[in-house]
Amino acid sequence: MTARTADRGARTTGLDLHLGHISGTVRAGLMDAFREAIRADRLAPGTRLPSSRVLAADLGIGRNTVVRVYSELISEGWLTALRGSGTEVSQRATELTGRRTRRQPARPRSQPVHDLRPGYPDLSSFPREEWIRAVKRTISTAPFEAFGYTDPHGRSELRETLARYLARARGLRARADNVIVCSGAAEGLRLVVAGLAKAGVTKVAVEEFGLQTQRQALLKAGLEAVPIPVDSDGADISLLDRSPGLGAVLLTPSHQFPLGVALHSDRRAAVVDWARRRGTLIIEDDYDGEFRYDRSPVGALQGLDHDHVIYLGTASKSLAPGLRLGWLVLPDHLVEVISSQKGETEETAGFVNQLAMTDFIESGAYDRHIRAMRAHYRRRRQQLVETIRQHSPGTQEAGMPAGLHVVLEQPARNGSELARRAAREHLAVEPLDLFRHPESTSDRDGVVIGFAAPSPSGWSGALDALVRALR
Amino acid sequence: MTARTADRGARTTGLDLHLGHISGTVRAGLMDAFREAIRADRLAPGTRLPSSRVLAADLGIGRNTVVRVYSELISEGWLTALRGSGTEVSQRATELTGRRTRRQPARPRSQPVHDLRPGYPDLSSFPREEWIRAVKRTISTAPFEAFGYTDPHGRSELRETLARYLARARGLRARADNVIVCSGAAEGLRLVVAGLAKAGVTKVAVEEFGLQTQRQALLKAGLEAVPIPVDSDGADISLLDRSPGLGAVLLTPSHQFPLGVALHSDRRAAVVDWARRRGTLIIEDDYDGEFRYDRSPVGALQGLDHDHVIYLGTASKSLAPGLRLGWLVLPDHLVEVISSQKGETEETAGFVNQLAMTDFIESGAYDRHIRAMRAHYRRRRQQLVETIRQHSPGTQEAGMPAGLHVVLEQPARNGSELARRAAREHLAVEPLDLFRHPESTSDRDGVVIGFAAPSPSGWSGALDALVRALR
Repeated sequence: MTARTADRGARTTGLDLHLGHISGTVRAGLMDAFREAIRADRLAPGTRLPSSRVLAADLGIGRNTVVRVYSELISEGWLTALRGSGTEVSQRATELTGRRTRRQPARPRSQPVHDLRPGYPDLSSFPREEWIRAVKRTISTAPFEAFGYTDPHGRSELRETLARYLARARGLRARADNVIVCSGAAEGLRLVVAGLAKAGVTKVAVEEFGLQTQRQALLKAGLEAVPIPVDSDGADISLLDRSPGLGAVLLTPSHQFPLGVALHSDRRAAVVDWARRRGTLIIEDDYDGEFRYDRSPVGALQGLDHDHVIYLGTASKSLAPGLRLGWLVLPDHLVEVISSQKGETEETAGFVNQLAMTDFIESGAYDRHIRAMRAHYRRRRQQLVETIRQHSPGTQEAGMPAGLHVVLEQPARNGSELARRAAREHLAVEPLDLFRHPESTSDRDGVVIGFAAPSPSGWSGALDALVRALR
Repeated sequence: MTARTADRGARTTGLDLHLGHISGTVRAGLMDAFREAIRADRLAPGTRLPSSRVLAADLGIGRNTVVRVYSELISEGWLTALRGSGTEVSQRATELTGRRTRRQPARPRSQPVHDLRPGYPDLSSFPREEWIRAVKRTISTAPFEAFGYTDPHGRSELRETLARYLARARGLRARADNVIVCSGAAEGLRLVVAGLAKAGVTKVAVEEFGLQTQRQALLKAGLEAVPIPVDSDGADISLLDRSPGLGAVLLTPSHQFPLGVALHSDRRAAVVDWARRRGTLIIEDDYDGEFRYDRSPVGALQGLDHDHVIYLGTASKSLAPGLRLGWLVLPDHLVEVISSQKGETEETAGFVNQLAMTDFIESGAYDRHIRAMRAHYRRRRQQLVETIRQHSPGTQEAGMPAGLHVVLEQPARNGSELARRAAREHLAVEPLDLFRHPESTSDRDGVVIGFAAPSPSGWSGALDALVRALR
C-alpha cells in the first residue's frame, strides 16, 4: 500500500491524536471523549470516522464497545451513519454544543492531526494482554517483602534478568551487581551526571546533535557540555584528545541520535583507547540498539570495556515510555557513587513494574515483541523511504536502516521551513536545529521524522501529509 | 488470644522473615527458598513450620502449592512429617547441605526472627486480588497516549481523584493542579527541599524526634535542620518565633513520628499564624493520617491554610511501600518551583501504577481497604497494649491510639538496653535514639515498636518475644 491509497477515514481524522483521556467506564469515557472533541472543534462536522474495527484496535478496546458508542452518538445526533457504510461527525453536531461560539477550543489550534515527531514507539502496538498476564503473575506470586521498601538499586530479580538479557542481546559484560534500575533513562542520566560531578568531573563531551534534555541534565549538575562534530562515521573521536579537561563523553554509538549513523569500528576502538589512556569515561546511550534492519544489531560499546563505559538502557523505545523503566550498567568502581545519588531508601520504580518486566523478559515475551516491532518498523521505514523517493525525489534521507526515526534534508530548504510547511499540512515534525548544540558549526539541516509513533490507522495519512509538505 | 496461647509453629519459625525471594515458578521457588534457608542455617533442624494453610495465606499463594512443596521436601529429606500433624525441619537436613560448615550463612546472624521495627504496614494484607483487577482494567482501557511520555506532575486522572479523596478523607483544600504525583514520599520531600533551597530557604525547623532520612534530605539540599522540642501537645510552636531565619517547619501534626502525639488545636492555629506572619511555610508529613482508633481522624493542617502548607502523602502506609506512590499538594505559588525539580520529561511513577491507584480509589476499594486495616491495626495495638500492661507493668506506652507504631519506655532502662535485650530474644525493635536530632536536649528514651509489620502468623510470636525482652 502506498500513501496514495490510504484509508480515507483514518487520514481525515487522525483520531488517535484527538480524543482526550477516556475515563470512567470505557463506553461512557469514549462517548465523553467524542462529545468533547466535537465541542472543542477538534472533530469538525463532516469528518469521517475510522471503522469500529480500526478504532477498537487503536484504542485496545472491544469492537462492540465502539459499535455501541457510535450507535448511541448517532441517536444523540452527534454522528451520522453514512449510506452504505461509515460514520461521520454530524453536520448538526455544532447545534448540540451550544457553547461552541463562545468557547475556546479545549486545545490550541496548533495541535497537529498527524504527528511524526521522534522519540515515540508505536504505542498502539503495546502488548497489553501479555503485559497484563505478567503483572498478574507478579502480584499473585511476589513474596510479600516485595511490597515493602526495597533496594534502591532495584529488584535483584530484574537486575539479574537484565544482566543476562543485555549480555545476550547487546553483548554487554554485566553482572547483576552492576545494574541499577531507574525510572526511565532520564533518571538514569540524572544519577550518572550527579555522580560524575561528585567524583570531580567538570566537562563532558557530547555529540553536536543530540537531545537538549540531556545537555540540560549536564548543565543542571554543574557540568559543561562540550560539542564534538558528527560525520558519516559517527562522532569524531580524534577531537577528544584536543579538548583538555574532559572527564567523559556521552555517545549514541549504535545509532546516532538524531543523525542516524553508527560509530565506525575504528572509532569505537579509538574512544575506548582514549578512555583508558586518560582515565575518562564513556556514557553509552543505547536508546534503540535493538532496532537495526539491514543486519543484526552491533553489540554495545560496553562489551569492549566494562570498566570505562557507563551503559544507559531503556524500555521506552522497546515497550513504552509510560512504564518509566530504564537501567544503568555501571563499572564496579562507580556503582556506589552513582547509586548513592538516589538517596538511601529511594527506590523510584515500583516493584510491580520491575517484576512484571522480569517476567516479560524471562517468558520470552520481550524477545517476541522486539522481533515483531523490528519487522513492523522496518516496513514503516521502507514505506517512508520509498514514498519519499517516488514523490519527492529532491529529498535525501540520512542515516542507516535502524531505529525509529530518520532525518530528511532538502537542498534548497532549511529544517524550520520544512517544519512550517508540514505544520500547514497539520503535520508535526521537528527541525534538526532543535537538537543542535549551540556551539556546533555544522551546516547540516533538515527535519527529524519519527516514523514509529502513528497508529496503524494514522500512518498513511501522516505519510500523505509529509509528501505534500515536501513538495 | 493472648501472647501466652500463641500458635507455637508460627512463633518458633517467624517464617515470613526467613525465606528469601521466591523466584521462578512458585513451587520451585518456594522449594529453593526452603533449601536455601536450611542450608544457611536460618531454619535450624527441629524448627516447626507453620501449617500449609497459614503459610499459603502469608505468602498469598495456593495451599495446594505449599502442601506439595512440604511433601517433596519431606521426600528429599529436608523436612520431617510429625506424628499427628505438623512439619519440622529434619534433624538430618544438615547432612544434605554438605557445604554447611565451610560456608557463611547467607544473611548475617543478626537477622531477627521477629521484626517490630516501625515504618511498615502489614504487607501480607495487601489486597492482591483487587489490585490485580484495577491493574487489569487500567491496562485494558488506558488510552494509548498513557503509554507515552507524560506530564511530570503525574496523570491528571490520579491528580483529580487524589484531590477529591484528600478533600473528603483528610479535609484538604486541593485542586488537581496543586497535586504532584511522586514515587513515594521520599521523592516528594526531595523535590520540596530542592525547590525551597532554590527559592532561597536556608533553614527549616524539624521536630526533635523524626526520621533521620528526612533530616538527611534537608542537609543534602544544603538546608539546615533546626530542632524544636516535642511535648504531649506536639511540637512546641512558640519556639519558632525565637529561631531567626527559618523558612519552613517540617511537622507530623496528625500523629507525631515517632512519639505518637497529635499537635494540639491551639498549636495548629499558632503554626498557621506563624507561617502567615512570617511568610514562611509548613511542610505537613501526613504519613499515616488515616489511622486513628479512638475517634475519626482529625483533618490535615493543610485544610486550615492551603497557601502556607505543603502537604506530603503516601500510599506506603495505607497500601504498600513497594508501589512507590506518594503525592504532594502544593500552594499555587510553589507548584512550578517544586515540580520543576523533577526535570522536564521526568515523570517517575509509571502510568499503570498511577491509573490503577485512580481506579482503586474511585471503585471504593481503597476506602474498604483502609477501613479493614484500621480495624486490623486497632486490634493489634490493643493486643500489644494489653499484653504489655499484663506482663510488664513497669512499661509505659506513649502516644495516642493511632498509626502503626508505639513508643515504649521503662523507668530504669534506656532504649538501647531494651533493644539489646530484644535482640537476645531474636526480636528487632528500634531505640528512640535513632530518631533523635543530634542537638535535641530531650531526656525521653525508649524503643519504637512497629506493630503492623508482622504477618498474622508471626504476630503473637513477636509479642511473646517482646514480653520476654521487657521482663
